[in-house]
Amino acid sequence: MASLLRLPSLLKPSAAVARPSALLRRRCRAGTAASVSASRSQAAAATTGAAAPAPPETRGGGDREGQVTPRSVDFNAWYTDVIAAAELADYGPVRGTMVIRPYGYAIWEAIQDYLNVKFKETGHSNMYFPQFIPYSFIEKEASHVEGFSPELALVTIGGGKELEEKLVVRPTSETIVNHMFTKWIQSYRDLPLMINQWANVTRWEMRTKPFIRTLEFLWQEGHTAHATLEEAEKEAMQMIDVYTKFAYEQAAIPVIPGRKSRVETFAGANRTYTIEAMMGDRKALQAGTSHNLGQNFSRAFGTQFMDENSQIEHVWQTSWAISTRFVGGIIMTHGDDAGLMLPPNIAPIQVVIVPIWKKGDEKSAVMEAVSSVQNTLKEAGIRVKVDDSELRTPGWKFNFYEMKGVPIRLEIGPRDVTNKSVVISRRDIPGKQGKDFGVSMDPSILVDHIKGRLVEIQASLLQKAIAFRDSNIVDVSSYGELKEAIAEGKWARGPWSASDADELKVKEETSATIRCFPFEQPEGAKKCFMTGNPAEEVAIFAKSY
Amino acid sequence: MASLLRLPSLLKPSAAVARPSALLRRRCRAGTAASVSASRSQAAAATTGAAAPAPPETRGGGDREGQVTPRSVDFNAWYTDVIAAAELADYGPVRGTMVIRPYGYAIWEAIQDYLNVKFKETGHSNMYFPQFIPYSFIEKEASHVEGFSPELALVTIGGGKELEEKLVVRPTSETIVNHMFTKWIQSYRDLPLMINQWANVTRWEMRTKPFIRTLEFLWQEGHTAHATLEEAEKEAMQMIDVYTKFAYEQAAIPVIPGRKSRVETFAGANRTYTIEAMMGDRKALQAGTSHNLGQNFSRAFGTQFMDENSQIEHVWQTSWAISTRFVGGIIMTHGDDAGLMLPPNIAPIQVVIVPIWKKGDEKSAVMEAVSSVQNTLKEAGIRVKVDDSELRTPGWKFNFYEMKGVPIRLEIGPRDVTNKSVVISRRDIPGKQGKDFGVSMDPSILVDHIKGRLVEIQASLLQKAIAFRDSNIVDVSSYGELKEAIAEGKWARGPWSASDADELKVKEETSATIRCFPFEQPEGAKKCFMTGNPAEEVAIFAKSY
Repeated sequence: MASLLRLPSLLKPSAAVARPSALLRRRCRAGTAASVSASRSQAAAATTGAAAPAPPETRGGGDREGQVTPRSVDFNAWYTDVIAAAELADYGPVRGTMVIRPYGYAIWEAIQDYLNVKFKETGHSNMYFPQFIPYSFIEKEASHVEGFSPELALVTIGGGKELEEKLVVRPTSETIVNHMFTKWIQSYRDLPLMINQWANVTRWEMRTKPFIRTLEFLWQEGHTAHATLEEAEKEAMQMIDVYTKFAYEQAAIPVIPGRKSRVETFAGANRTYTIEAMMGDRKALQAGTSHNLGQNFSRAFGTQFMDENSQIEHVWQTSWAISTRFVGGIIMTHGDDAGLMLPPNIAPIQVVIVPIWKKGDEKSAVMEAVSSVQNTLKEAGIRVKVDDSELRTPGWKFNFYEMKGVPIRLEIGPRDVTNKSVVISRRDIPGKQGKDFGVSMDPSILVDHIKGRLVEIQASLLQKAIAFRDSNIVDVSSYGELKEAIAEGKWARGPWSASDADELKVKEETSATIRCFPFEQPEGAKKCFMTGNPAEEVAIFAKSY
Repeated sequence: MASLLRLPSLLKPSAAVARPSALLRRRCRAGTAASVSASRSQAAAATTGAAAPAPPETRGGGDREGQVTPRSVDFNAWYTDVIAAAELADYGPVRGTMVIRPYGYAIWEAIQDYLNVKFKETGHSNMYFPQFIPYSFIEKEASHVEGFSPELALVTIGGGKELEEKLVVRPTSETIVNHMFTKWIQSYRDLPLMINQWANVTRWEMRTKPFIRTLEFLWQEGHTAHATLEEAEKEAMQMIDVYTKFAYEQAAIPVIPGRKSRVETFAGANRTYTIEAMMGDRKALQAGTSHNLGQNFSRAFGTQFMDENSQIEHVWQTSWAISTRFVGGIIMTHGDDAGLMLPPNIAPIQVVIVPIWKKGDEKSAVMEAVSSVQNTLKEAGIRVKVDDSELRTPGWKFNFYEMKGVPIRLEIGPRDVTNKSVVISRRDIPGKQGKDFGVSMDPSILVDHIKGRLVEIQASLLQKAIAFRDSNIVDVSSYGELKEAIAEGKWARGPWSASDADELKVKEETSATIRCFPFEQPEGAKKCFMTGNPAEEVAIFAKSY
C-alpha cells in the first residue's frame, strides 16, 4: 500500500531475480534467421559475403546478437532478455539496482522532453529538493509513515561520524516539500504554488525487476498547493489527463484512467487517480498516478495561508508522478519475439539506414547516397541513424535494430543507387508486407513517404494494443464469472459497491485487485456482482505488476 | 584534495553558515529607492498611486522586497541576501543541504540545455548509474579512497535491517562506472565508450555555502574509456575546451583554463584540467574540471580490452564535471548592490514587461499593447515574461526584476500606447544612460532593437568581467611580490618550478594555492620566482572558494 506508483508485488520472484546472469551473459550465437531470410537477396548476399574489409573473426556474427527467449514461452525471461539484447539496462552491483544504458535512457529522455513541456504549459516550475529527509518528518503523517517505513534506506553515518538523527533517502518528497511550503506560503497571494522535480528516489524493495521495480528509480514528482479543495481536485484530474494523453499519443499505450479504491489509495492521499495499462502477458501495470492529498500533509506540517477574508486556512494539495517504470511498460506493451518495438513518437532512432555493398568499388557510390538520404531526413526533423560499421554485416544489423525496435529500416545498395531508390522495412510488419521497394530518393517523395509510414506505425501500434486490451477485458456480473476471467489471465470489469473486506477477499482468493473505477462508465442501473446491492460504478479487477 | 570540483575550503565559516536565518527571514521593508527614483515620472506616479484595485495592505511594498547588504560592505552577506531576495535557493532542513527554487533551477536548466547539446555533438550518450556504491569499491583505488573517505554519507540500514555491507551515497562515480565498464568492454571495437550522466552527488562537507559547497549538489559527470593515452588526453582537453567556451559565450565568465599542480590534482587522476573564475571579491572559483585518469581506475577494476593485435590492455580514461556550483559563480561574477545580473544567453527571463496604468479606463488599452508586444517577442524567440499582477506596484516590480537580474525591462503605459512606443531599461546600466525612450512597437523595429540590446549586454558583461579580472592579476617575480599581491586580495602570476613542499608553504603562509598553470603562457625564458631555477611555465596563485 506504500507506493505512489506501485502496488505490493503479487508476482512470484521474477525470472530476472531468479536468473541474474541472464542480463549479463554474452551471447555468441549468430542472429536468428527469421528477419534475415525475410530480407531481399541483395542483403542476404552481403550478409554472407566477404567484401567488407573487416577482420574475419567478426564476419557473419558477433557478440551482441540477441538470442531471446520467445515471448510466448516465458514472458518474464523474454522481458529480461530483450532488456539485455537491446542494451536498455544492466544490473548494478547493489542488489535490486539498475544501470540505465544509453538506449534505455534515451527513451526516458523522450518521455521527459514531452512531459516537461506539458508541465510548464500547465503552469508548473521545475525545482529541486534535497534527497535527505530527517526521519522525524516521515513520522508526521500517520498513514504515510505506515505505508513507507518498511521500505526506507537510512543514512546513519556522515563524514565519519554517527548522526544524531538518522536521515531517510527520499522514497517520495511530500514531507520535505510541505516543510518548505510552510516557509514559503503565507497568503492567498502565494497560491497556487505548482512545482515539479525530476529526481531519483529509493525504496527498499525485496522483489525487483528492471524498470518495473528497482531499489532506486528515476521519476518526476509534481507537488501543488491550492486555496480550495475544488482547485486541488481540478489539478489532480488535469495531471492524470496529461498522463493519459501522453500514454495514448506518444507511447501508444491505451491506458485506462480511473480512480483507485480506498484500499489502493496512496498512503496520505484522499483520492488517487491512476492510469492502468495492460501488458503483453495481460497483467496490469500502474503506469502513473495523481493524488488529491486534501489537507493531510498541510495539517501535519502546519502549511497555512491567510485567505482574502484574513482567515487562516490549511492549503489543499496534490502530488503526481511518472517514473522509469513507464519504460518497462513500453517494452511489455509492444515487444515481440524479435525484440523491442518502439512507437515512432518516442523512438530515439526513428529510421536506421543500413548501407549494403559487396565490392570495394561499390562503396563510395553507396555511401554518398546514404549520406545524402541521411541529411534529407535529418533536415526534415526525422531522428535518423546510419550504421556504416564495417565490423558488422548487414544481416547482423538488421537483427540488431529489430531488437532495438527501430520503427523503420532503410536499405541502400548499388542497385538502389542506380535506380535512385531505397528499400523501406517496417519493424511492426514482418516480411514482404512490411516492405516498400523502390521508393524514390527524391527528397520531396522520400520525406513524405517516411513521415507517412511513421504516422501509420504509431497509429497501428495503438490500434493493436487497443484490440488486445479490449479482447482481454470481460464484463462480469457474478463473483464466479470474475474468478473465471481472472483464471484465464484476463481483466474482469463489473459493478462493485462491496466492502473493503470483500475487496481483500477477492485479492486473497484470486490474486486480482481493483485496478480502478474507470472514468468511463456504462450508463444505467447496476447491481454489485458480489453483494447484489445497487452499485454506482463498475470496477476493473486484474492481476498486476 | 578530495573533490572533482572543489579544493578544501580556505574560507572562514561563511556568513551563510554563521547566520542561517538570513536566507529565511522575511523582509518587510519597502524596496530600496535607488532604481525607482531612477525611473521616469510615469512609473513613479504609478508606484505611489492608488489606481490598481489591490488590497490596500499590499500597496507600495510587500514581503518579498530585497533589503540586501551592499556588496562592498560584506560580500558573503550580500551573496546570501541576493540568493534569498531573488528566490534562487533556500536552506533545506538537514544541515548543509539546499533547496533550489524555480528561478535558481531555471538557470541550472539553461546550463544543462547548452551543455547537453555540446556533449551529444562531441559523441557522448547520457545514461544513469545507481547512486549506492558498495563501500569496498571506494577502497580499490588508493588515492581515491584517501581523498573521499572523510566526506562520505553511508547507508547502513535498508528495509528495516542492518546491511551486511554499508553503501556509499555516491560522491562521484568513477568506481561504479569502472565496475560496469569492465562488463561492457571486451574489444577495441567497444571503444571509445563515451558517456555522461546528470545526477545528484553527496559529500559530507563541514563548511557549506549555497550553490558553492553543499552536502548534496547536482552536476553532470562525463566518463570515457579509450584505447590509447593520446585519445584520452585529447578527450580531456576537448571537454575543458567545451567548458571554457560555455563560460565565455554563455555565462560571460572569462575563466582561465589550465592544468592543476600535482598537489591540486583530483584524487585518482594523472592530470586535472580546470577553468578558474575570478569572483567579485577576487577569490578564485574552480568552475569545472576535466581529468585524464590514465589507467588508474582501469587497473584497480580490471577494465581491459583486446586490441587489434589481440593484445590485452587496460583502457585509458577521463572524467569531467560541472555542477550547480556554477550558478554561484554567475551570481558572484556579475551581481551588484541591486542584486543578480544575468547574462542574456542564460537568463530564464530575458525581457520583463511591466504594464503601467493609473485609471481603470487606461487598463484595457495598455494590456492590449502589452499582450501584442509579448507575442511579438515570443515569436522572435525571446524569453519574455509579463508581470500584470495587480497586487504589486510597478515600482515594486522594477526592484524585484532588477534583483532577479533580468537583462531588459520594458515599460508600457498609456502615453506609450498613444505613441505606439515602449521604454526599454537595461539592467546593467543604471539610470538614464541605460534607457531607450520611445522605441517603436512596430515588430520589425522592436525585435531588432531588443535583440541588439541583448547581444550588447552579453558582450558588455563579459568585457566588464575581463577588465576586472585583468586589473586584479599581478605578474610577480619574487615571493615577496606574491605575498604583497595576495595580501591585496589579488591573483599573482609568476614562473614556477618549485617543489610540492614549496607550494604547500605558500598556502600555509598566504592562504593562496596554485589555481592552475594557464594554457596561455608568456614566451621566453623564465626563472622560478621562488627558487630562481629555470621554469617552463607561469602559475597563477590565489585564494579560492
